[in-house]
Amino acid sequence: MAKQKVCVIIGVGPGNGAAYARKFAREGYVIALLSRTTEFGEALLPELTEGSRALSCDASDPAAIERCLATIEADMGPVDVLLYNAGSGGGWGSPEETTMEQFELGWRVNAQGLLKAAQSVAPAMKTKGAGAIIITGATASRRGGARTTGFAASKAAQRSLAESLAKHFWPMGIHVALIILDGVVDLPRTRERMADKPDDFFVKADDVADLAWSLTQQPRSAWSFEAEARPFGEKW
Amino acid sequence: MAKQKVCVIIGVGPGNGAAYARKFAREGYVIALLSRTTEFGEALLPELTEGSRALSCDASDPAAIERCLATIEADMGPVDVLLYNAGSGGGWGSPEETTMEQFELGWRVNAQGLLKAAQSVAPAMKTKGAGAIIITGATASRRGGARTTGFAASKAAQRSLAESLAKHFWPMGIHVALIILDGVVDLPRTRERMADKPDDFFVKADDVADLAWSLTQQPRSAWSFEAEARPFGEKW
Amino acid sequence: MAKQKVCVIIGVGPGNGAAYARKFAREGYVIALLSRTTEFGEALLPELTEGSRALSCDASDPAAIERCLATIEADMGPVDVLLYNAGSGGGWGSPEETTMEQFELGWRVNAQGLLKAAQSVAPAMKTKGAGAIIITGATASRRGGARTTGFAASKAAQRSLAESLAKHFWPMGIHVALIILDGVVDLPRTRERMADKPDDFFVKADDVADLAWSLTQQPRSAWSFEAEARPFGEKW
Amino acid sequence: MAKQKVCVIIGVGPGNGAAYARKFAREGYVIALLSRTTEFGEALLPELTEGSRALSCDASDPAAIERCLATIEADMGPVDVLLYNAGSGGGWGSPEETTMEQFELGWRVNAQGLLKAAQSVAPAMKTKGAGAIIITGATASRRGGARTTGFAASKAAQRSLAESLAKHFWPMGIHVALIILDGVVDLPRTRERMADKPDDFFVKADDVADLAWSLTQQPRSAWSFEAEARPFGEKW
Repeated sequence: MAKQKVCVIIGVGPGNGAAYARKFAREGYVIALLSRTTEFGEALLPELTEGSRALSCDASDPAAIERCLATIEADMGPVDVLLYNAGSGGGWGSPEETTMEQFELGWRVNAQGLLKAAQSVAPAMKTKGAGAIIITGATASRRGGARTTGFAASKAAQRSLAESLAKHFWPMGIHVALIILDGVVDLPRTRERMADKPDDFFVKADDVADLAWSLTQQPRSAWSFEAEARPFGEKW
Repeated sequence: MAKQKVCVIIGVGPGNGAAYARKFAREGYVIALLSRTTEFGEALLPELTEGSRALSCDASDPAAIERCLATIEADMGPVDVLLYNAGSGGGWGSPEETTMEQFELGWRVNAQGLLKAAQSVAPAMKTKGAGAIIITGATASRRGGARTTGFAASKAAQRSLAESLAKHFWPMGIHVALIILDGVVDLPRTRERMADKPDDFFVKADDVADLAWSLTQQPRSAWSFEAEARPFGEKW
Repeated sequence: MAKQKVCVIIGVGPGNGAAYARKFAREGYVIALLSRTTEFGEALLPELTEGSRALSCDASDPAAIERCLATIEADMGPVDVLLYNAGSGGGWGSPEETTMEQFELGWRVNAQGLLKAAQSVAPAMKTKGAGAIIITGATASRRGGARTTGFAASKAAQRSLAESLAKHFWPMGIHVALIILDGVVDLPRTRERMADKPDDFFVKADDVADLAWSLTQQPRSAWSFEAEARPFGEKW
Repeated sequence: MAKQKVCVIIGVGPGNGAAYARKFAREGYVIALLSRTTEFGEALLPELTEGSRALSCDASDPAAIERCLATIEADMGPVDVLLYNAGSGGGWGSPEETTMEQFELGWRVNAQGLLKAAQSVAPAMKTKGAGAIIITGATASRRGGARTTGFAASKAAQRSLAESLAKHFWPMGIHVALIILDGVVDLPRTRERMADKPDDFFVKADDVADLAWSLTQQPRSAWSFEAEARPFGEKW
């Protein structure tokens, strides 16, 4: 019997993380869900492929990432797809309001954690000459705003790192891509906060998951690096 | 019986144009092939959906574009997908070598023709609140080089126009997207010119066509505007 | 007696054009003012260096540009600084509203005219191994908007061309640079149209002229290509 | 007697740092030189304005930056110009070779230190409604490369942060700008490493210092944010 493909999702919540899990499970992957606490992930397991697991992993701690990914590889097999969806804000607010702690946490989760995760899954992907690392970015990956100080700086570091990863790993057959999420994900808490917005205003997490999936399906003669997910009514 | 969807391809040759035609035909579209001369298009028709047609249309002549698209709409029905693939070089070489004629032709075909084509198909798309306009861009859409003077300037105008089209038409349900083709398409003539390059060096036109198709399938809560098609081994 | 340096300004009105003229005259240059009609230019001459001239030249006509620049070179000497400030709108409004005529005029004035002007002054600059070509761009040089269709497309072509010019001519000692004017120039007609705006809202043309001047003074080990001129209170 | 203006340089070595110091001293500023060790700075003092000082400050330590800048403000007066020139590599090499330590150090020095330094000088600048913060960036600020992993990621974070700083502080009269240094600075050690390169290949630190100076002199109706310093013969 052919071995099931393994998809690891770092950063699992009710938005993109859960949608990624459901989509890749539907496509036959066995899923490893990594998040600081496992409650949400465990509640999601019944919807996923048998053999999927929820693990506790703090994305701001490189040693924890390394350990978790080693466990997954030992127990579930080499990782085929890594979806890097961890995302601490990193500090909203102006440069004057942003604390050193927020600024550092954002960088640890958005940039440093990605480097460690990529380093951890790369050896097996290199052996196969195949694999995908898909990262959830944001509009802030492209520019800093007066009130997105810490978030934008960490997302910019992540984008630059994603580009370094792509330039290094693509020629080995490993597809690194960055989704630029340019909109607000449709969630109970965003709906509540923006109660005046119409349905069309929101990005559906399932649609972002379809984009992530389609990136992993691109033939290697025509890969995309940066892929926007923007609602049709968004101003940009 | 449900009406077949109509796909118009402006600029049809043995590369992306033919691949676009085959892909959208396989997906059930009836195809209108527009190019200066109809020989190539007519030879392709047997591979396409019944009812597909090849029309002579000079993309550097806005009146011709308008006329052709009116004919298509009258004979085949409103256009669902416009693939703008016309691409005169526009003048390779340095700014000193580029002639006014090359420079103008590039702009007419890459930029002005796109504006007229979009204006021609937009009314029917607006009525439906749906449709797609996918444009074949290039790395040169993003920057000018010392020896890409006319080509890059016309592709930059096209990219800017594509962005204006997107910002204007997206909220009406019309998906405008730009493919950044960052590589050399695999063709007998490019193979001959670059005989020392391995298979992996080239972009396969079928893979670009798959990308164009996937763009037309994106749900409107998560549309992409710019989508790269770059071989995995490409330096960038 | 040392020969006076020659500065040509293509596109002279009460904003940047006049400010460029005054600044370079103060710095000792003899000035050639090119615009469709010479009234404004002639009225400006008394403020400029002796020997300065106003010539009629339609920037949308490459032959006229070539002729004018040949006349200037014959009468005043080789051009040291070319300030390309011509700027027909090129069509404001949505892609549906923009006419072929507007779209073409914008491209002729913003892009084609620049190519011809650069080709005309380049030989003498190459002979000296020195010279400067400074172009007045805009925010729209960088992106297309829903209502800046023709203007943005022509400015994008201009920016790409400026980049090709820079990459080609810099190594010959000719400094090509693009000013990104990101704001509204302070003029009687803009003040009237935006009567509610404070002084600080506007870009002062004299300040843009200082920037153009400073670009021509950069030592060649540290040249800038793109230089923003943005009011300190501008949102971006 | 009018109080002398104060210029702080964080990161002082034989390249840009020393050139910044000499330039701003020539323009009448009293200079505070901050670097991990004070030997180089102290040796430079005799060339600078009387009252200039060299202080030991580790730019990877926010508390040290805060302390040093408080000392300077207490002893020398409020800071008029902050030149942020600190720059640990942050890890050259591929994503596989880059260690967590290198990656973190790069971010601390290039991004976190800038945030703390800006927070430290801002209150006095806000009180005056004037001041300048000029940051030495690099080509890597704009993109990640296969072998610039840690350096590029930290410079990208710095650039995004610089943009947030600019958008926040410009309206208060504080000019934040980023120099994109696109070339190799002319130094004994770079000359030795690239002994085959001609004089023209190198960026002269004095020319970068002139650019930094010119940015601080821009009138506020026409400020630049990003300013390239690129040798005229550079490929880009």
